[in-house]
Amino acid sequence: MSTSLFDYYEANKEKHLDGLLQLLRIPSISTLAEHNPDIQRAAEFLATELREMGMKTVEIIQGKEGQHPLVYAEWLEAPGKPTLLIYGHYDVQPADPLDEWTTPPFEPAIRNNNIYARGAVDDKGQVYLLVKAVEGFFKTEGKLPINVKFLIEGEEEVGGEFIDEYIMANPDRLKADAALVCDTEFFAPELPTLNTGLRGLVYTELEARAAAHDLHSGMYGGAAPNPMQALAEIINKLKGPDGKILIPGFYKRVKKPTAAELASWKRLPFNEKNFMKKEIGTTALVGERGFSVLERLWSRPTLEVHGFRGGFTGEGAKTVIPAVSTAKISMRLVPDMKPNEIISLYKKYVKKITPPGIKTQIRILSSAPASVVSTDSRWIAAGAEALEQVFNKKTVYMRSGGSIPVVGTFQKYLKAPSVMMGFGLPDDNLHAPNEKFHIPNFYRGIETVGRFLELLGQ
Amino acid sequence: MSTSLFDYYEANKEKHLDGLLQLLRIPSISTLAEHNPDIQRAAEFLATELREMGMKTVEIIQGKEGQHPLVYAEWLEAPGKPTLLIYGHYDVQPADPLDEWTTPPFEPAIRNNNIYARGAVDDKGQVYLLVKAVEGFFKTEGKLPINVKFLIEGEEEVGGEFIDEYIMANPDRLKADAALVCDTEFFAPELPTLNTGLRGLVYTELEARAAAHDLHSGMYGGAAPNPMQALAEIINKLKGPDGKILIPGFYKRVKKPTAAELASWKRLPFNEKNFMKKEIGTTALVGERGFSVLERLWSRPTLEVHGFRGGFTGEGAKTVIPAVSTAKISMRLVPDMKPNEIISLYKKYVKKITPPGIKTQIRILSSAPASVVSTDSRWIAAGAEALEQVFNKKTVYMRSGGSIPVVGTFQKYLKAPSVMMGFGLPDDNLHAPNEKFHIPNFYRGIETVGRFLELLGQ
Repeated sequence: MSTSLFDYYEANKEKHLDGLLQLLRIPSISTLAEHNPDIQRAAEFLATELREMGMKTVEIIQGKEGQHPLVYAEWLEAPGKPTLLIYGHYDVQPADPLDEWTTPPFEPAIRNNNIYARGAVDDKGQVYLLVKAVEGFFKTEGKLPINVKFLIEGEEEVGGEFIDEYIMANPDRLKADAALVCDTEFFAPELPTLNTGLRGLVYTELEARAAAHDLHSGMYGGAAPNPMQALAEIINKLKGPDGKILIPGFYKRVKKPTAAELASWKRLPFNEKNFMKKEIGTTALVGERGFSVLERLWSRPTLEVHGFRGGFTGEGAKTVIPAVSTAKISMRLVPDMKPNEIISLYKKYVKKITPPGIKTQIRILSSAPASVVSTDSRWIAAGAEALEQVFNKKTVYMRSGGSIPVVGTFQKYLKAPSVMMGFGLPDDNLHAPNEKFHIPNFYRGIETVGRFLELLGQ
Repeated sequence: MSTSLFDYYEANKEKHLDGLLQLLRIPSISTLAEHNPDIQRAAEFLATELREMGMKTVEIIQGKEGQHPLVYAEWLEAPGKPTLLIYGHYDVQPADPLDEWTTPPFEPAIRNNNIYARGAVDDKGQVYLLVKAVEGFFKTEGKLPINVKFLIEGEEEVGGEFIDEYIMANPDRLKADAALVCDTEFFAPELPTLNTGLRGLVYTELEARAAAHDLHSGMYGGAAPNPMQALAEIINKLKGPDGKILIPGFYKRVKKPTAAELASWKRLPFNEKNFMKKEIGTTALVGERGFSVLERLWSRPTLEVHGFRGGFTGEGAKTVIPAVSTAKISMRLVPDMKPNEIISLYKKYVKKITPPGIKTQIRILSSAPASVVSTDSRWIAAGAEALEQVFNKKTVYMRSGGSIPVVGTFQKYLKAPSVMMGFGLPDDNLHAPNEKFHIPNFYRGIETVGRFLELLGQ
């Protein structure tokens, strides 16, 4: 790394932290309409910084009524060099329960080398380190080592679709060789981590209808079909007690992680007992035999029930056999499972196992494939190298069992693989009271992203 | 039946109907606190009639704050004759949805020989015919053929406990040889019917707890136990797809109906296809093989799921694995199953089949045994005879799959068997818009109860 850039980052630590505090004071909660003015303020705050540092065509892109704006900026004056699309989000989760915060969520406070505020790590701290890393090049060299596009959204916490719509409608503008997604965390403190895979998701509503109207269980129980009993039966036939999903053909395309990936997961400091007792707080883990916990979480598909609608759920006793009941059921997918094929296998199987007297209907609420980036790619290699230089430790690879939908969108519409490089820590209290960001990781994040850009420009 | 009594009933038809219309105009809805004054008015209306006709010690018995009063009256001047406790209720269900009523629910209207109003058949019409039947004796003979106690409650539609508390506290006052419960219906029009049995009920909440807090299904799905999946598994092990309840020992004490009862059920005009398609509106009936539908409804125990609490039930998709979920599960009991024994077998079995990682806990919300009256008893014989005299058809016996809790209370605390003699029809729209009472059944009900009292006095 150039000495001047490193010196600049070092000399401006206080200023960078101060800028982040300003951004954290804006309560840009995307779920609550009364915070729409704050959403706009946060977008403008970032657009102003991007414009003033030297990015070109900086725009706040407004969507339809009710959508939150995208912040876009580009600098494309490095011909022959790769183009990196940098992603983050400026919206935050609601802060309740407020009384569990030690200091108010939108009055950032520093304690024990951490900054406590809603959005500290998810994702304002990480967005801001991206901005500051890029700014360093303008300040010291007057230019960037590669072409850069920023795309920062304000709907990540509400699952908004504006960013997807915009990418689909503007693939030429957003075209990039790779994306840098800074919204994840280290596997453990001081352990530089790249996330190389996400599970996909098919989320469904399974409705079971029995009678034309609700029935009294005294008068009809013993002869009338019960849709809740039917759903229980269907769910049991979807997944066995051993965690095996029983839909015929479900595992057909499941691709195993590479031997190198599996070997690296084995080296991760993962304590199964702590995970079970402290992190989850239960007495036994479940899932498929023959796979480690991390494999089950990251590289095996699952099926989960999230809730049942219908029937009586109030206090006390009501002896109703509901006419209709709906279960929310999702499946997590891994490479190379195809969502549409899984949906079709699922529908066919549910139809087959629907008990007599019951009509089932399936609605698909969302579907996305899994995404993985090869650990051999130059993008991952550069990310790993940059992390190692700053943290003085070999970068580890992990995956995530959840989804970051935009990673799939980048892959599908821009053909751009994502480097998921995040500086959060496992105990950062994402989406919870006392969310924090470890200040040394904020500074080292700036430096890592600077080195990453330099490496890509070489 | 004495000619003078018969003539009196005949001569006063219009007056009796007019009295019922007055009672129906009082909107004594027990679930809605704003109708408490109407509850009081309805109680006073009945107390006044009972007092004026010649009953003694007529009282409106007030309960605790929030409880609705009992109307009590007695006439015990027939030494050596049996004592009959006459039960009914003056409270009614709410009337909504109001726009589905042809005429307003509390402005009784007469169409096609029916009286349309909320409470017409459930239970004001039936309470009033009891009062008028007894009044006839005072008017014609100045005395009653047997000893009579009236106990009329105002909390039947809310499952209130005042009547039970009062009976338990005053068994000597309420002592009777038998009870007459007039809150049921004929099996079919023009088919005089006595109800000789009710199923009991054990209503439970089964809570399954997995983790210490809700989990994200992406991050934990595949390793963390899911309490909703566990409940589905437990429910499947409680009842098989063939309707057989799998709790060991569950059927041990189940007593078969007598051969005479079974034979009489076979003669009932029951159309299984109509029951399935029109009444329930489904495509298949369920339940235990080897038993007719009526046997399954009336003389076989069942287990039903009524609802699930916990998890995500709103619109759209939320990928949560809830920490805890609760299923409402009830069991209908038949003679001679003992509720406490069933609860203990159920708890033991659930504990055994609870999957790893899950803690289950069971709360019992209510429990009551089944009750049957022998078709050979003198009370049933007199009821059947009275019905046959008036309707000119052999009385049929049926049971009900539901519960009338007060029947159990009479049995348990007063040792009094109940004659469940009701004059409703299957299409009377109980608890629904356009509730009705067939006017000829109102008049014939008065006459039948008169004859019943006469027969008991012989």
